[in-house]
Amino acid sequence: MKAIVHVGLKPGVLDVQGKAVANALTGLGFGGVQEARVGKVIELELAHLTDREEARAQVTDMCEKLLANTVIESYRVEIAE
Amino acid sequence: MKAIVHVGLKPGVLDVQGKAVANALTGLGFGGVQEARVGKVIELELAHLTDREEARAQVTDMCEKLLANTVIESYRVEIAE
Repeated sequence: MKAIVHVGLKPGVLDVQGKAVANALTGLGFGGVQEARVGKVIELELAHLTDREEARAQVTDMCEKLLANTVIESYRVEIAE
Repeated sequence: MKAIVHVGLKPGVLDVQGKAVANALTGLGFGGVQEARVGKVIELELAHLTDREEARAQVTDMCEKLLANTVIESYRVEIAE
């Protein structure tokens, strides 16, 4: 079973990487870039799991313990197949 | 207009960050993690663009010039609204 985890900074948290991307794009001549925000996507291949809800629960647990810094980041779990 | 760019390593390129994530998850007791791959998502807020195709062309250009290292990374552009 495949799971996709989207991790991004919570709204209101300063995204310095995003700001750097926006500035670099403006510097390259791309006008009109008002904002850029950078997040992570983690694709997991899980063996021995066939139940979608069980997989979702386990991946949520992984996010809380390792994949996301829940103080400043939010995450979304997607079970692909 | 909002654009979402997904950037990930091409298949076959060693994903050391993904390997570290998979090993860490296994170390935390999550069995059955066969593979993990880590990618980036960049959300762009673009002003002065109303045409979806024009936006897609411009964001593709941004990917080629800055957002993706096309030697080892592939990207996908999504125009959200």
